[in-house]
Amino acid sequence: MSQALQQNGHLKMVRHPQIQAKAQALIPEIYHHDIFPQAIVRAEQDGQQIHGWRAEVVNTSEKFFQQDFFQGEHVIIDFGQHCVGFLEFACEAVGSPPDAPAHLQFIFGETLAEVVEPFSEYSGWLSSSWLQQQDCYLDELPQRTRLPRRYCCRYLRINIVALSRKFQLRFTALKLDTVTSASLADLPPCTTSDPQLKRIDDVAVHTLKNCMHDVFEDGPKRDRRLWLGDLRLQALVNDVTVKNYDLVKRCLYLFAAMTREDGMVSANIFVKPQVIADDTFLFDYALFFVDVLQEYVAVTDDSETLAELWPVAWRQIELALERVAENGIVRDSNDWWSFIDWHQDLNKQAASQGVLIYCLNKALLIARQYDPTKSDFLEHQISRLKAAALRKLWDPQSGFFTSGDSRQISCASQVWLVLADVGTLESQQQLLARIKSHPPEIQMNTPYMMHHYVAALLHVNEIEQATREIKRYWGAMVEYGADTFWELFDPQQPDFSPYGSKLINSYCHAWSCTPSWFIRKYLL
Amino acid sequence: MSQALQQNGHLKMVRHPQIQAKAQALIPEIYHHDIFPQAIVRAEQDGQQIHGWRAEVVNTSEKFFQQDFFQGEHVIIDFGQHCVGFLEFACEAVGSPPDAPAHLQFIFGETLAEVVEPFSEYSGWLSSSWLQQQDCYLDELPQRTRLPRRYCCRYLRINIVALSRKFQLRFTALKLDTVTSASLADLPPCTTSDPQLKRIDDVAVHTLKNCMHDVFEDGPKRDRRLWLGDLRLQALVNDVTVKNYDLVKRCLYLFAAMTREDGMVSANIFVKPQVIADDTFLFDYALFFVDVLQEYVAVTDDSETLAELWPVAWRQIELALERVAENGIVRDSNDWWSFIDWHQDLNKQAASQGVLIYCLNKALLIARQYDPTKSDFLEHQISRLKAAALRKLWDPQSGFFTSGDSRQISCASQVWLVLADVGTLESQQQLLARIKSHPPEIQMNTPYMMHHYVAALLHVNEIEQATREIKRYWGAMVEYGADTFWELFDPQQPDFSPYGSKLINSYCHAWSCTPSWFIRKYLL
Repeated sequence: MSQALQQNGHLKMVRHPQIQAKAQALIPEIYHHDIFPQAIVRAEQDGQQIHGWRAEVVNTSEKFFQQDFFQGEHVIIDFGQHCVGFLEFACEAVGSPPDAPAHLQFIFGETLAEVVEPFSEYSGWLSSSWLQQQDCYLDELPQRTRLPRRYCCRYLRINIVALSRKFQLRFTALKLDTVTSASLADLPPCTTSDPQLKRIDDVAVHTLKNCMHDVFEDGPKRDRRLWLGDLRLQALVNDVTVKNYDLVKRCLYLFAAMTREDGMVSANIFVKPQVIADDTFLFDYALFFVDVLQEYVAVTDDSETLAELWPVAWRQIELALERVAENGIVRDSNDWWSFIDWHQDLNKQAASQGVLIYCLNKALLIARQYDPTKSDFLEHQISRLKAAALRKLWDPQSGFFTSGDSRQISCASQVWLVLADVGTLESQQQLLARIKSHPPEIQMNTPYMMHHYVAALLHVNEIEQATREIKRYWGAMVEYGADTFWELFDPQQPDFSPYGSKLINSYCHAWSCTPSWFIRKYLL
Repeated sequence: MSQALQQNGHLKMVRHPQIQAKAQALIPEIYHHDIFPQAIVRAEQDGQQIHGWRAEVVNTSEKFFQQDFFQGEHVIIDFGQHCVGFLEFACEAVGSPPDAPAHLQFIFGETLAEVVEPFSEYSGWLSSSWLQQQDCYLDELPQRTRLPRRYCCRYLRINIVALSRKFQLRFTALKLDTVTSASLADLPPCTTSDPQLKRIDDVAVHTLKNCMHDVFEDGPKRDRRLWLGDLRLQALVNDVTVKNYDLVKRCLYLFAAMTREDGMVSANIFVKPQVIADDTFLFDYALFFVDVLQEYVAVTDDSETLAELWPVAWRQIELALERVAENGIVRDSNDWWSFIDWHQDLNKQAASQGVLIYCLNKALLIARQYDPTKSDFLEHQISRLKAAALRKLWDPQSGFFTSGDSRQISCASQVWLVLADVGTLESQQQLLARIKSHPPEIQMNTPYMMHHYVAALLHVNEIEQATREIKRYWGAMVEYGADTFWELFDPQQPDFSPYGSKLINSYCHAWSCTPSWFIRKYLL
């Protein structure tokens, strides 16, 4: 999840300093690991490869450190894995004393395409400021330099833009000081005997790790921000892998620390230089506060946090219910009110109905244990909304739930109404089977939506089908050489970007790391 | 002076650590002054102006700090004077919270042309790494930033390369933290009653000040290095203005700290990250060590320094005399063996003969006072070289000294043989007059060479003519709006550059600051 399309002019936001103080007290320890160049590569055009490029090894890293670079040359370093961290390097001059600065340009790529296709031709609609590059001018040589920004890359291209005629440049050291708040020291092993699932789990854990910093970030290259929808999925994987529960707790407190005047939590939070809730509010994301809290408490039994944050969660329920019309259906609108999936044509109404019921179910789990007076109310709402979904959204002719005035049929609507447990188990199983046999025109575009599809399959006990879908979808990314799972992946159009350029897609994205949760929790 | 064209493969250099330690103990105090934006300007094409550009004020600096910048906009700040220092600025986002980094590009120009004509079209032969630019990516806003490199500018262009659709950028602070090792607090007033000379003196002092840092730099924008030829002229102006004698002493020690195996001092010294003598050796520059030492001792009476450095100076004399042929004339060669002037076609032989005699005269001044046993030897050499110049180089037919096998006639040859005091006062006066009445084809290209011409006029007591030349030449730069004097100035071709582009010329150059010395010492 990545970009708000709306801007609300004069929103009133409210800060809750005591809650924010609790979040700030939970800033995590950061673990550092040095990653060194593994090989020097050349990019070869290859239509069989993802994005059309193949890396050919042309040199060892040992030879790289012996090479004298002349003005105009360049090198592409392969770190052998997806890294998030800080570049440190040392250079010296070879030849006469350096009589001019050395002008170097560093280009960082999660993918090979990013270091080969010129950024100058970028025309996507996300800011080009996300393209990872830095020009450096070294006034003194030898010099050891640490670039101040954090980068995200497997490949690093260095262009030797300008030296002088009197000297060449040699790198005497170069590494990435990688950072994460995930401690892999105590990572429970993944005990699956299926080698493909094992490999998928590896990539998923690496994805989660590289998204864990001061907060759970959505993607470490671009956005680098705490989104509720991403947090929700990261927290699940965290539960079965690195178990940094304090980081989940910190993120819950951050969402609660600054809300809209009416108590609605923002879709995402900026953490630096100060905590600011974005002015983007999404129906589904706000409701997910309930879900994250419920899962957190279920795992940790942290009733103190629950007591403090339950009113915040409850407020999201109240606000969401205000959007329900008399007929028991969530009101639709044309703006960016609910996320559901990155799909330009997707109508969000039916899926949002599903999200609401799903979160009411989660709220009911909390209420029964900690706030039983609310249980009856919740049960009543769940019944009402389920009945309305069946009455108003179900289309017997097509065998699908529809959404919006146009009665659109999408995968997302079916998936979310299954997750909401609308209908019988049998009807849910039939519905998910029908998605396969009669594919709706509006398909699923993201690993985020695919997660919900797999979760729905598991909800109806279709474990084998769930496994097949994981292998088909995430397995295909691994086949394409993914070190970490991508924000977007359509096997039919591997270059698809909702932002107008594959270069700006995130290739390590939080919401894509959930296979580890499925594999470790359900498929063992 | 700026670039060595030669590279000597396996030169043996010798370090003299005790001498270097004395230099390091003399690292000067740096004085800081904040300089703030004076106006916001627009560049207008104007063929009447130097380099074809005129600055039109379009906004006050107050309004600049209230302006919200959108992606794609730019601004040109005029600091109202030539500055050397560090840029500090603070930015904030206006609108929604900033959901992408702010990508800014800073371009610094001593002249307006540098911030208007694109660096991408630069094709000069000095390294493009000298072109002053920096791309900044601000990940967090608000943010206060200090760029780590020192820049040199009157104009600063800021390109707002990329923001996002959700926010604009506002500058809340911006200044240059300017630096110099010249203390202007005790600057003696320039008491000339001639307003044009007064203005020229102002610009010259500003030039010296902006070239004074850890060492006397040749130019603070490009090279930024200690060259012996520049040091020699800076030290003269220093004597009559800011009187930082310790800095002259430090620079003499730096040249003595690392020499060629045979004792020759380098033409220039790199100071950071460690002291390294360049592998460029010039006949005239090495000899100037004698001249700088003599002038330093004459002003300071520092006999301790003299005792320590006189052997180094003497060695330059010995080495230079080794280049004298049996006929008493300095041997010519085709490589870059002597500097004299930036002139592609200039033959350096006769002028170098002049430099040698001139420095022997300076050595004789030292010897008579401190090392009288060498006086006879020096007097003999001076007589021999002067006689040889008259015998071998003088061409009665043209009335000029000639140089090289082609018997080239240049201004430089005449000027340096006058400064060497070859011939009678009357013949010298006639010679300098003849430069005006019968201009040699090989003219003078730099303020450096013009300095020697003016010095020669003063040597023959042509004070009025010297004053006219200063007003004609340096006065024309002031008329063109110079805040500091330029490295290169040919009134006939104001865009002349020996480097292939006016953008890379230095517009604050040490060797151009000597009018203050003439005005304060000779013209009052």
